[in-house]
Amino acid sequence: MTTFREKWRHIIFGVDSPAGRLFDQLLIACILLSVLCVMLDSVAAVHRQYGLYLYWLEWLFTLLFTVEYLMRLYVSERPAHYARSFFGVVDILSILPTYLSLVMPGANYLLSIRLLRALRVFRVFKLMAYMGEARILMNALFNARRKILVFLYSVGVMTVVYGTLMYLAEGPANGFTSIPQSIYWAIVTITTVGYGDISPQTPLGQALASMAMLTGYAIIAIPTGIVTAELTSVGRMPSPQAGRQCPQCRKDEHEKYANYCDRCGAVLEK
Amino acid sequence: MTTFREKWRHIIFGVDSPAGRLFDQLLIACILLSVLCVMLDSVAAVHRQYGLYLYWLEWLFTLLFTVEYLMRLYVSERPAHYARSFFGVVDILSILPTYLSLVMPGANYLLSIRLLRALRVFRVFKLMAYMGEARILMNALFNARRKILVFLYSVGVMTVVYGTLMYLAEGPANGFTSIPQSIYWAIVTITTVGYGDISPQTPLGQALASMAMLTGYAIIAIPTGIVTAELTSVGRMPSPQAGRQCPQCRKDEHEKYANYCDRCGAVLEK
Amino acid sequence: MTTFREKWRHIIFGVDSPAGRLFDQLLIACILLSVLCVMLDSVAAVHRQYGLYLYWLEWLFTLLFTVEYLMRLYVSERPAHYARSFFGVVDILSILPTYLSLVMPGANYLLSIRLLRALRVFRVFKLMAYMGEARILMNALFNARRKILVFLYSVGVMTVVYGTLMYLAEGPANGFTSIPQSIYWAIVTITTVGYGDISPQTPLGQALASMAMLTGYAIIAIPTGIVTAELTSVGRMPSPQAGRQCPQCRKDEHEKYANYCDRCGAVLEK
Amino acid sequence: MTTFREKWRHIIFGVDSPAGRLFDQLLIACILLSVLCVMLDSVAAVHRQYGLYLYWLEWLFTLLFTVEYLMRLYVSERPAHYARSFFGVVDILSILPTYLSLVMPGANYLLSIRLLRALRVFRVFKLMAYMGEARILMNALFNARRKILVFLYSVGVMTVVYGTLMYLAEGPANGFTSIPQSIYWAIVTITTVGYGDISPQTPLGQALASMAMLTGYAIIAIPTGIVTAELTSVGRMPSPQAGRQCPQCRKDEHEKYANYCDRCGAVLEK
Repeated sequence: MTTFREKWRHIIFGVDSPAGRLFDQLLIACILLSVLCVMLDSVAAVHRQYGLYLYWLEWLFTLLFTVEYLMRLYVSERPAHYARSFFGVVDILSILPTYLSLVMPGANYLLSIRLLRALRVFRVFKLMAYMGEARILMNALFNARRKILVFLYSVGVMTVVYGTLMYLAEGPANGFTSIPQSIYWAIVTITTVGYGDISPQTPLGQALASMAMLTGYAIIAIPTGIVTAELTSVGRMPSPQAGRQCPQCRKDEHEKYANYCDRCGAVLEK
Repeated sequence: MTTFREKWRHIIFGVDSPAGRLFDQLLIACILLSVLCVMLDSVAAVHRQYGLYLYWLEWLFTLLFTVEYLMRLYVSERPAHYARSFFGVVDILSILPTYLSLVMPGANYLLSIRLLRALRVFRVFKLMAYMGEARILMNALFNARRKILVFLYSVGVMTVVYGTLMYLAEGPANGFTSIPQSIYWAIVTITTVGYGDISPQTPLGQALASMAMLTGYAIIAIPTGIVTAELTSVGRMPSPQAGRQCPQCRKDEHEKYANYCDRCGAVLEK
Repeated sequence: MTTFREKWRHIIFGVDSPAGRLFDQLLIACILLSVLCVMLDSVAAVHRQYGLYLYWLEWLFTLLFTVEYLMRLYVSERPAHYARSFFGVVDILSILPTYLSLVMPGANYLLSIRLLRALRVFRVFKLMAYMGEARILMNALFNARRKILVFLYSVGVMTVVYGTLMYLAEGPANGFTSIPQSIYWAIVTITTVGYGDISPQTPLGQALASMAMLTGYAIIAIPTGIVTAELTSVGRMPSPQAGRQCPQCRKDEHEKYANYCDRCGAVLEK
Repeated sequence: MTTFREKWRHIIFGVDSPAGRLFDQLLIACILLSVLCVMLDSVAAVHRQYGLYLYWLEWLFTLLFTVEYLMRLYVSERPAHYARSFFGVVDILSILPTYLSLVMPGANYLLSIRLLRALRVFRVFKLMAYMGEARILMNALFNARRKILVFLYSVGVMTVVYGTLMYLAEGPANGFTSIPQSIYWAIVTITTVGYGDISPQTPLGQALASMAMLTGYAIIAIPTGIVTAELTSVGRMPSPQAGRQCPQCRKDEHEKYANYCDRCGAVLEK
């Protein structure tokens, strides 16, 4: 029995065997297909004609993912630990809505089912785990987290200030019905999205809006500069194979042309 | 009495004691809540139902901030210096509007109160002082100030030129009613905001607009390049404690915890 | 006869003789003119007045390009190899539509001709081969391909999640008629295009949309950072002739025209 | 008389004396004011009330600039050379329109005057000469000119391809009335401006538009990367004061820790 568990643990959690890779590929295909079903079911014309098929497909995928989730708990060495991990929680959230639609019947059950069902789209998040290259980007963003927070805070203050000024300059008559609404406009403008559902009509408002646009256009340089500086400095870090190890204290990060170890003073080999 | 002043000076201006940190956290919460009140009060539906509560909350916050301002002046070593500092001026500006609404009654007092009240949103600026990481970004922007000015000036010239050309090409019939209006359109376009409230209708106008868009799309690279180059060079600058010079060979770039010079092997001073 | 083939091979495939350069310049002019004809013909007013002239010009260019294609096959050393290469396929695709319009007559032949004809615009792709500087940009993009894929995948997940949330928050009544439609909206918003054909109406939807905009505004920094880091590191890479190693101390980064090693003073080989 | 010319040459062309600086400042003020007059005159309400004043102001500025232009020719050492230089041409272009309005009277003279008058806005270009910091940015752009051309060409090809595909997918019924019009839409979309005056209605068109948006969103990284890499490499250039000069051959650009001159092998001082 232990052999069975260990074998499946390798297939489900590992990617170093043909069976493990096949399992992962099938799982990704199922996740993408099930998300596609939820999407298609939301199109009125498709729902009318194929709603029933999509309903049963939905249940098929839910059962498959339930079996997979139970298997993961069973083969895992510490099931409780897995269940509390990020992907354990995503797993349970991605099968729960379909079951919940059973215990909450009623007059408007059709719509509520679909609303809950739509939450299953978070299943997509699971795909994230299958890519390793994301780590470098994540590290760069993590190192720059303080600068990014300062930047986001500044943008937040700016949107509040511009939003309030525009509320005073344009007023409810021109679509700026309240300060929160004006802040929404300021975000639309500063991020250079510019829907045009609300736009300034008075000369003063247009002048203020012009300033907001130029501000947004100029400050987009700041997050870009932050991320680029991080990624560039990551690229400057010595690669493992280039590091000569000190023969005495084993420190292995030295400048390229160092003659002596800067920790213990031993002579480094060329 | 001096002890009392000093104790409160530490609480109000310092952040190195539990009491000082608690004071700052409470202050930030109050500022955010009071700004939230001003915002909510501007929503017509909320004002109708909770206007009175928000009115009294407004006064409560104003009195709290007044007490805080007087305390700051009292415990400060040089009150006049604080009152003229940036945050001293912001402090007084953020409590004044509510008091002004008392001495300026009249038929339309309700609206004017709210207009003045909305100025209190500048209180948000105070939050800025609580973040230290902003300095690096500020320095990068300060070092690049001349290049940014040249860039903004070029963008300004471009918007004037494109605005005038579009005014000639499209004319008042297509929404380009005046040159200032056309310049507003050019800013909306070059910053890639693109509301669509004014958009070219003639082939010539669309050709000119296409050029303006491509210009704006291409030149956004310039502020980004400026800020990135600054931030990258800041990251390369040796930090103060790391710049120890080797007493023997004068090499002055060593790793932070180096004991020996990696060029000549001499012992480095701590 | 071999002399004739070799002479024309130099003219058609080479760019190192005056005749070869003239041939390339004429070819580029013809390609641009023929694309211009297709474009102009799609304008209703132009088609009504000059449709016949454009029709014959179209045939003239098609015959010219056919002769050129046959010549390329004839003078090429390995005709089958050329026919299967990228530009061989583009060549045949750019003359086929006009011929196809002959064998597919019918009631609606006029429109179908023009649809097929419009495909000839891909002929523009051929111009790409005449520029060599593109290689550095291509290399930078190729080196960064994994990071770019991770980024595009993250953006994809984000648009699906934001699209679904907006479908739940706004619903069909406000234009978000289905999840695919909502995903289209999310792409329009996150890329900061912002048509405004669909825009959120409810406060909850506007709050979600604000988050989506700020997300899109912030993450544009990531592809920029990736590409910049690649281009900067390309610029730092030693060019082949510059990477001479010092025979004495093994330092291998010297300026291009250095005669002596700047570390140990040994003579460098040319 | 020569003294008079030389004195004024210093005032008009020089900036190293108080008089020269004052002249430049007055000139800039006049240019900005005259442009402001042209702008204000294009606003219908302002023209109705102050049109006459602006008309005479316009003539005043034109006469001033004429005197200034003649003075420049007079004091210049090579008048013909100045007249053919960039700013010489801009000078004459910025006074000509007002004079032209005299010799071309007629029924519709009022409008034509204002159209010609609006061209005077190019006078703004003259301001450009007064800023020196622009050179670094210009150099970075000049060094990157080939990469930028390749990039612009790629964007051009993309807009033609996306425009044609959208014309086929959406057709004249949905606003894509011709290929040039569709290319205009493609430029609006790829540059992320997004007016929304033309927007896709069919699912296929929306899918294509989504691809176009993601393309535009991703490739904005490329010009940014190019410019940043140029500006960064400019920043890496050794600053003049940091360079130690070789005592033997006078080469003054050495690496920071070089012991020997890499050109002549002489020992460098620390």
